[in-house]
Amino acid sequence: MSDTPTNTTRIVLASRPQGAPTDANFRLEQAPLPALQPGEVLLRNRYLSLDPYMRGRMDDGPSYAAPVALDAVMEGQTVSEVLQSTVADVAVGDHVLAPGGWQTHAVLPAAALGRRLNVAGLPLSTALGVFGMPGFTAYSSLHEIARLKPGETLVVAAASGPVGATVAQLARLQGARVVAIAGGAAKQAYLHTLGVDVALDHRAPDFAAQLRDAVPDGIDVYFENVGGHVLDAVLPLLNDFARVPVCGTIATYNGRGVEQPGPDRLPALFSQILRQRLTVRGFIVHDFKHLWPEFEREMAQWLREGRIQYREDVVEGLQRAPEAFFGLLQGRNFGKLVVKLD
Amino acid sequence: MSDTPTNTTRIVLASRPQGAPTDANFRLEQAPLPALQPGEVLLRNRYLSLDPYMRGRMDDGPSYAAPVALDAVMEGQTVSEVLQSTVADVAVGDHVLAPGGWQTHAVLPAAALGRRLNVAGLPLSTALGVFGMPGFTAYSSLHEIARLKPGETLVVAAASGPVGATVAQLARLQGARVVAIAGGAAKQAYLHTLGVDVALDHRAPDFAAQLRDAVPDGIDVYFENVGGHVLDAVLPLLNDFARVPVCGTIATYNGRGVEQPGPDRLPALFSQILRQRLTVRGFIVHDFKHLWPEFEREMAQWLREGRIQYREDVVEGLQRAPEAFFGLLQGRNFGKLVVKLD
Repeated sequence: MSDTPTNTTRIVLASRPQGAPTDANFRLEQAPLPALQPGEVLLRNRYLSLDPYMRGRMDDGPSYAAPVALDAVMEGQTVSEVLQSTVADVAVGDHVLAPGGWQTHAVLPAAALGRRLNVAGLPLSTALGVFGMPGFTAYSSLHEIARLKPGETLVVAAASGPVGATVAQLARLQGARVVAIAGGAAKQAYLHTLGVDVALDHRAPDFAAQLRDAVPDGIDVYFENVGGHVLDAVLPLLNDFARVPVCGTIATYNGRGVEQPGPDRLPALFSQILRQRLTVRGFIVHDFKHLWPEFEREMAQWLREGRIQYREDVVEGLQRAPEAFFGLLQGRNFGKLVVKLD
Repeated sequence: MSDTPTNTTRIVLASRPQGAPTDANFRLEQAPLPALQPGEVLLRNRYLSLDPYMRGRMDDGPSYAAPVALDAVMEGQTVSEVLQSTVADVAVGDHVLAPGGWQTHAVLPAAALGRRLNVAGLPLSTALGVFGMPGFTAYSSLHEIARLKPGETLVVAAASGPVGATVAQLARLQGARVVAIAGGAAKQAYLHTLGVDVALDHRAPDFAAQLRDAVPDGIDVYFENVGGHVLDAVLPLLNDFARVPVCGTIATYNGRGVEQPGPDRLPALFSQILRQRLTVRGFIVHDFKHLWPEFEREMAQWLREGRIQYREDVVEGLQRAPEAFFGLLQGRNFGKLVVKLD
């Protein structure tokens, strides 16, 4: 084909960050696309998902996944269109979920592709958000770890983001009292539109007192995805038998290896876990993939019925990805952050 | 009856400890026994169990149970003989498990009594140890939280104590590799007689290195019951998906409210819980009482067959209870600590 691309525009990891990442850690460049081998497909990436976990991939310490190599393209999930295919079950023109990375085009083994997307249904970009990994993170961890009983109180932070907003709405559907936390008045106002019981701004000087007042019956589930001063305010309010699914600790992502000032609260945390019989459990969404078919069926219906709402923060152009990513780590995005690549 | 006692010799809580308890926190005294009311029984306490949780009851901070009031008798489980009874289903001469407290005699509602003990079977004192709450603590938490798979590695500290020794032996029966930790050469030698794979002395200067060498495949379950430097050595060795049942943190019992020097390791712990998808879960044995019938049946058989061994540390006389209790908090007991009261 005459218009087959021969190059990809991409962003590679130029150096590993010390603390918060900066522009110097990334490099935008052109690179030739390799020739298509049997079993491979050529993709045009249309949307790139930006997610907090990517900060962890920039370090080479121990993690649940290998780090991105220096000078390699930054990893990321994409919604991609198939431009060329060497395999029978992937057709040119298909839209697929793919590990396409921070680039405009990719050559990948067909076996690495995720599900084929139904373009007649929900918007393509939702496959990266409420109807993709973030939504499934919320759904599966509520199902497997939180196990809410009606009338219990759930607190979720980063609640204007795609995971938190879905947690908040699903918990309401399950009959829980929901206290949702985000940063700033605009996000706080948005949380009210999701039907939560209380919406709080964690930047308020008296945030800890506001939270205490918002949970007269204590906290049964704290969906931990931010760490920092929100976690500090939550810990004393947990009820006996509280469950704390740990799905992200954005506030400390940049602090790995950095000494935190004392006192050391680890011994007291273990005492509290014992005394109150808490369950603190980390997970990543891949641990629960047996739930995917159920999620896909239920979530599609809830989205069509308007019972679950979602919000996207769409950035135009690959070159803006690093800046958008820095903002994500600082909580500046508003809704699921995706980069529109075309 | 002419020999019916009219007084009890008892130990009451004289003051609340600051840090480690001392003799000044207890007072040995005689007190008249109240007249028996309908529904009550008069007990002669024969064995008193001493347990680390009692340290928590001496404080008036939040806990899973109400504190002992000042000038009230110290709480404790006893094996007791019924001297007088006002109810049909409790007979004089029965031996029962009871919340008899740190005293020689007690008047209690019959409804407060635990199970009737079969004196023809195992020694009476085992109802306070391997065949009682400590043994059940081991059994139930392995069943509900650890969920060992054959070939996994379990690490347990305080392993010469009644909970730890039972955890170690049950884990071996379940096909796990067991690394058992205790303080001192004598206890270390005892652990070998239990058939564990590796026995370590946590007082060794190179304990952390010894532990690392003892778990070439990492740690899948850490049965946390001591805290302190053993916990510190364990944390970096945990495998992904490791389970940490938290059943006691003796090393910090005396430190409630005391500031620990920095750095603050709490944020890093949450990062590790996320990164490795750990489950850290506190429990007390009463949470799992639905398992009791199964425990009673299986444990009785294992004990009769000699597949589970136990060791008791018997102290003679109520007046020695405080000193024995201080030693328990410092790990000086060797086996299940009971006070023989008659």
